[in-house]
Amino acid sequence: MTRYEQLAEEMRTAIEAGTLRPGERLPSVREARETRQLSPSTVFAAYGLLETQGLIEARPRSGYYVRARARPAHPEPRAATPSTGTLDVQVSELVFEVLGHARERALVPLGSAFPSPTLFPLPELARALGRATRRLDPWRTVEDLSPGSATLRRQIAQRYLAAGLGVDPDEIVVTNGAMEALNLCLETVTRPGDLVAVESPTFYAALQALERLGLRAVEVATDPRTGVDLASLHEVLTRHPVKACWFMPTFQNPLGSLMPEARKRELVELLARHEVPLIEDDVYGELYFGARRPPPAKAYDRRGLVMHCNSFSKSLAPGYRIGWSAAGRFAGEVARRKLMGSLAAAVPSQEGLSEYLRQGGYERHLRQLRATLALYQAAALRAVGKHFPPGTTVTRPEGGYFLWLELPAGVDALQLHRLALAHEISVAPGHLFSADRRHANGLRLNCGHGNDPRCEQAIKTVGQIARSLA
Amino acid sequence: MTRYEQLAEEMRTAIEAGTLRPGERLPSVREARETRQLSPSTVFAAYGLLETQGLIEARPRSGYYVRARARPAHPEPRAATPSTGTLDVQVSELVFEVLGHARERALVPLGSAFPSPTLFPLPELARALGRATRRLDPWRTVEDLSPGSATLRRQIAQRYLAAGLGVDPDEIVVTNGAMEALNLCLETVTRPGDLVAVESPTFYAALQALERLGLRAVEVATDPRTGVDLASLHEVLTRHPVKACWFMPTFQNPLGSLMPEARKRELVELLARHEVPLIEDDVYGELYFGARRPPPAKAYDRRGLVMHCNSFSKSLAPGYRIGWSAAGRFAGEVARRKLMGSLAAAVPSQEGLSEYLRQGGYERHLRQLRATLALYQAAALRAVGKHFPPGTTVTRPEGGYFLWLELPAGVDALQLHRLALAHEISVAPGHLFSADRRHANGLRLNCGHGNDPRCEQAIKTVGQIARSLA
Repeated sequence: MTRYEQLAEEMRTAIEAGTLRPGERLPSVREARETRQLSPSTVFAAYGLLETQGLIEARPRSGYYVRARARPAHPEPRAATPSTGTLDVQVSELVFEVLGHARERALVPLGSAFPSPTLFPLPELARALGRATRRLDPWRTVEDLSPGSATLRRQIAQRYLAAGLGVDPDEIVVTNGAMEALNLCLETVTRPGDLVAVESPTFYAALQALERLGLRAVEVATDPRTGVDLASLHEVLTRHPVKACWFMPTFQNPLGSLMPEARKRELVELLARHEVPLIEDDVYGELYFGARRPPPAKAYDRRGLVMHCNSFSKSLAPGYRIGWSAAGRFAGEVARRKLMGSLAAAVPSQEGLSEYLRQGGYERHLRQLRATLALYQAAALRAVGKHFPPGTTVTRPEGGYFLWLELPAGVDALQLHRLALAHEISVAPGHLFSADRRHANGLRLNCGHGNDPRCEQAIKTVGQIARSLA
Repeated sequence: MTRYEQLAEEMRTAIEAGTLRPGERLPSVREARETRQLSPSTVFAAYGLLETQGLIEARPRSGYYVRARARPAHPEPRAATPSTGTLDVQVSELVFEVLGHARERALVPLGSAFPSPTLFPLPELARALGRATRRLDPWRTVEDLSPGSATLRRQIAQRYLAAGLGVDPDEIVVTNGAMEALNLCLETVTRPGDLVAVESPTFYAALQALERLGLRAVEVATDPRTGVDLASLHEVLTRHPVKACWFMPTFQNPLGSLMPEARKRELVELLARHEVPLIEDDVYGELYFGARRPPPAKAYDRRGLVMHCNSFSKSLAPGYRIGWSAAGRFAGEVARRKLMGSLAAAVPSQEGLSEYLRQGGYERHLRQLRATLALYQAAALRAVGKHFPPGTTVTRPEGGYFLWLELPAGVDALQLHRLALAHEISVAPGHLFSADRRHANGLRLNCGHGNDPRCEQAIKTVGQIARSLA
């Protein structure tokens, strides 16, 4: 940690412990300099960070104060007990039924999988796209076929480098979004009937991918704060012939859990001992509220077993459909399957993103996006605290844009979903996040639409419905 | 047929029969008016059509003359005898080995699957793309998810209408190129281990798709001029539990064969009696040299069993990766699989193409492209006729940009491919086009790079290699 990160961490701890309460002033720049021998720029950097995280606010000519951020009224949920056996997967019908409406503009999109598209620099991207395609060498339409534009793959490798791990551009395969990358990785390391370990709860798209390929699932206990439970995983690996794991170690969907770095390392080492590949879905990795990017599990991979998948869809360019995999020892096979399955990612998207990245501005956009999402999360947490019934638990993710709620026992989230629809609100019921629909009182709320003025009222309405069902 | 099409057909027949020889003059406008009671505009339309087909040329103040187009020195090949049994498919290694080099600019791309990218209106497309994305409503990035942009799907349905068949926009799923559409259709109607009927020879990507999904192939005899042999197909359907057919009834790859309309109709009826879906790959359908677009087999479908797949990649916008399926009764399932597998096609590509189609210019571009490809084919046929050894046969496709050669018995096309590589020329050996590598003396030559000055010399070199092996 740098000195400014240390200071920010110290103040954050003081705020969370209640040492510094809402409305109270943080040490001034002069005080910090005198007591801690820190330069003014270090103090400003630390306080700026806390400010973007929504923890403190600057008051002109007065100093920095702890924000009046209501401590959530509800505790955090605990890890659910997963299914003990292996599961056939058939969730698609339900997923399509529930999420089919989530695209309609009339609905308040608390059930959406996407943050508000207005949070992204689409006009700047369009200009970069225009520049890149107007001067496009026609032969790039052939040369950018899978594994993808050499320039873009080098730029992606540079981002890995900045995140602390070296990835050879030749390992990178540009795909039609992360979803295709994940599917390609999955089909590369499995055959129909194979068993794949997933988190509990898990992202429904992972379950759909298993269903599509005729795979079976085995669930691993997952802590809402710290992610995959390694004891549970160890037991699963010992008892079952697991062919692959599909995990989101960073800001898991739907929990928002973040595996601590040491635990990520242990995860990779455990899987290496069992020779089991890890398909790492890292699409929220850039959306951290803390001081720096949590390293992906791939950072600890020495055996080429981690197949890291990511995209620009959640961080920069929704709809451009540019994702990638860095699939370790399986990279060549993934490239071939990409070529066989859909030939290439769209060349205008590849060239446009490459041009945008070349010109700079991505980091500035990301800083703003992270700060915005942190504020939206704080607002959503306040609304949940105010309006949901006692007995509700709710996560406090350190990144991303989802809250995971567990409603009082007996409340059926699918019923709640249907009642909310009647109020033109979508929500994602827990049933979607397990092969055996066990998270029946779970609820994923999207707080990435905080600029939609209907959101707070919608959370209130959903909370009232939950009260009526409790 | 219109009157001008009738006149063109009459003159074409006269040219092909030798009634009119190269250098001879066609009836003048006045003569045609007097003998046939045709208006000047009808005559000009007919002669203009023959001119774009490379059959005749206008000489200023003199009239229209038959072009000095050498009649090919080699006869056409006959239908190959397909494998009689069912085949496991493992062609990918060879395909990647052989075609891995085909993208290198240093090589003369006679083995390429793509026409020259310089034949497409990429600057106009880039302008349309710029206009469409600069004013893009951010919410389109959500609304254009699978099944795709409503506007683009309506435009595609209008093109179907112009080709003589009605397709509901709701049946259309926009995909990441035709390759993804074909793969989605295939996985929708099969399960691993199932049997799929393919042409002999067949496009290697169909074989790779079968291999990827763990499917087996059964081959159907295919005539180089008239396509799938229905007697052979009938026998296959009677003897084997075929779950789907993957055919290219229009300008088949590699043969260039075109099933006559009556035969397409019979094909659809035969498959309907057996309740077998047809996956129709129609990506060359727009590249006809004749008077009008050959209707796809789907035009005769009354049962929703034809899954028609197409794209803009070969006709308008290489690299944009916009294809689609109109999958009949399976359309809903294809849309779901698209959503599960890769979520959506690139929104900039969808919106850019939609804008280009809206503004017009596509038909003009297509007319020019067809005329260019017809001229390139004529030049390639001349070169093949001059330089390949006796005993060679070669197709005369009525569209597309491939020639299929069968070399004298005993010449191994894979060996020829390796020798050609040493001369920096790629070719596609027949081995790629069958699950059991039976077309060992077959050769696919791409004549869509006729503007590459190296092409004629390259055909000469390949012909000399063939002579040395014969």
